Amino acid sequence: MTTTEMTTSFASPGKTTARAYGAQAADAALAPLRIERRELGPKDVRIDIRFCGICHSDIHFTRGEWGQVPYPAIPGHEITGIVAAVGNQVTGFQPGDRVGVGCMVNSCRECENCRRGEEQYCLSGNTGTYGSTDRDGTITHGGYSDHIVVDEDFVLRVPDSLALDVAAPLLCAGITTYSPLRHWGAAPGRHVAVVGLGGLGHMAVKLARAMGAEVTILSQTLRKKDDGLRLGATSYHATSDDATFEQLAGSFDLIINTVSAPLEIGRFLGLLSTDGALVNVGAPPEPLPVPVFPLLLQRRAFAGSAIGGIRETQEMLDFCAERGIGADIELIPASGINEAWERVLRSDVRYRFVIDNSTL
Amino acid sequence: MTTTEMTTSFASPGKTTARAYGAQAADAALAPLRIERRELGPKDVRIDIRFCGICHSDIHFTRGEWGQVPYPAIPGHEITGIVAAVGNQVTGFQPGDRVGVGCMVNSCRECENCRRGEEQYCLSGNTGTYGSTDRDGTITHGGYSDHIVVDEDFVLRVPDSLALDVAAPLLCAGITTYSPLRHWGAAPGRHVAVVGLGGLGHMAVKLARAMGAEVTILSQTLRKKDDGLRLGATSYHATSDDATFEQLAGSFDLIINTVSAPLEIGRFLGLLSTDGALVNVGAPPEPLPVPVFPLLLQRRAFAGSAIGGIRETQEMLDFCAERGIGADIELIPASGINEAWERVLRSDVRYRFVIDNSTL
Repeated sequence: MTTTEMTTSFASPGKTTARAYGAQAADAALAPLRIERRELGPKDVRIDIRFCGICHSDIHFTRGEWGQVPYPAIPGHEITGIVAAVGNQVTGFQPGDRVGVGCMVNSCRECENCRRGEEQYCLSGNTGTYGSTDRDGTITHGGYSDHIVVDEDFVLRVPDSLALDVAAPLLCAGITTYSPLRHWGAAPGRHVAVVGLGGLGHMAVKLARAMGAEVTILSQTLRKKDDGLRLGATSYHATSDDATFEQLAGSFDLIINTVSAPLEIGRFLGLLSTDGALVNVGAPPEPLPVPVFPLLLQRRAFAGSAIGGIRETQEMLDFCAERGIGADIELIPASGINEAWERVLRSDVRYRFVIDNSTL
Repeated sequence: MTTTEMTTSFASPGKTTARAYGAQAADAALAPLRIERRELGPKDVRIDIRFCGICHSDIHFTRGEWGQVPYPAIPGHEITGIVAAVGNQVTGFQPGDRVGVGCMVNSCRECENCRRGEEQYCLSGNTGTYGSTDRDGTITHGGYSDHIVVDEDFVLRVPDSLALDVAAPLLCAGITTYSPLRHWGAAPGRHVAVVGLGGLGHMAVKLARAMGAEVTILSQTLRKKDDGLRLGATSYHATSDDATFEQLAGSFDLIINTVSAPLEIGRFLGLLSTDGALVNVGAPPEPLPVPVFPLLLQRRAFAGSAIGGIRETQEMLDFCAERGIGADIELIPASGINEAWERVLRSDVRYRFVIDNSTL
């Protein structure tokens, strides 16, 4: 890291102006704009953002599909970069450090979930990286920007062996699949199925395999089969084929469902073994009809999981570094964001768009 | 126990004729009839049935609501009685022993679930106490009869301190609630809610309390509140009152849902704390609409559980004997079965009808 890489265009302390890419309304295209970042507090880290992944959530949020949006909306919660400056009480980071920021930038720190390091389930609600009201009353803005100011407790360390571009999607797609795989015990001898081979799905496959589980991909068609096997799956089945559900009945200890569109839950429950769990990491807007007999007959569960805590996110980054796991990405300039979003909506990406933030 | 209590009206070995109460068709009332019991095999136990509980399942089965029925239908799977005779290879029982039979009388014995003592989840399907085809090809008939022949591996020991009448409902209502309470960890410091205060619900309350958990009852109205508190609940709330769902949001580690009618699952999921589980022990015929966000946001689960294994059923009986726990029952003669069924359908029983089989 050279010192020029750490240069920022503003004086500290004091509020700073960031170049960003965002939307002024639900139906507006994203465009360059300027936003303000807060003054560097004693516990804050200012990060020069190098890369930011594009998550489907960015689109839902910006288009107002998940509730009212405090426009302008600047999404992005798969952030990697270099520390530019630190507050005078920061102990864990210094300028030049390689770091990341994921889906949350604060939490209450006091509830039982925060105390045990599961800030994602903060009982007061964690502070999202964008579109949330932070504890100081300001609205948070995400990683489609050139820098960000974050409390050090919500900053992750990116190990040297992980390139910052392929590491960016680990901060959401990675931890969102890592956490349920760990929680429900993906390990040698365990059979894990991953439903959907998109941004989350491709990470779930890599991570479950690295944990030693036998991995099966369940996708609508066999179109991406070669990729799936290359990523680490042992087998690949089409859910459009009824035979899949007969052949694999009772097979899996754990199914990670990365598909947010409505799924025939009953059919997938039938694929679980005794005590198996079908875990949604995406949320369809409408309730899903769940037949109860398949749950009852083999003590199965239909569950959900949201990202992971800060401690677990660091563990995931370290795990990925040790195993050489990054996301499969398509690097784009900021000017390509609108087109990338259209392609995300068509599931036309293998497997994550990452913005080169130097082009902002 | 006197020897006269062990007298049976037939000679052993050889098939025997049992007095029973059953239905010849889905729309027929139950009436006295005679059925045949198989010859006592080397591993079989012949039991003089003293008491048999009435379970809602008896009605679903007999009326053909759960699939085709091999009439005549003789229901009953909450059986207690006295051993009358044993086969020449039986090692665990002898005439005069106080015993029970629950919802299953056989299983494959070879699959991984049977091998670990969870015969209720036998991968070939366990053999139900009534309406099933047993491993020898005969159709099983339940406890609305004066005697039954059962493989000793599926016979339970009723400890001396448990009266046979109040012990009968433990064989289904007891184990069906005991098993999920144990599996999901009802214990001191844990908050358990029981939805519905019927046959299963009242056992769930007694058992959860005996395990040391803090118990809340969620019932449609406050009509049975006094009973609920007497049974061991700390609090009692009406689900017809919207305030219940606000006041108790995020409160429970475990909710046991004993109601088979459709429930607004999303509202009940909101009552669970982080990592909490809503466990159905009854199965509504139609799929339930389940919103995914409440699962995702606190890693909650919607699950099911079916009775328990033989080993665990014995453990439950021993636990109940130690703590002096039996069912709250209304004892009826066989001639009262049809009326009792009507009352079960109206939820008009506190809390389990038990047939005095000496009146058959």
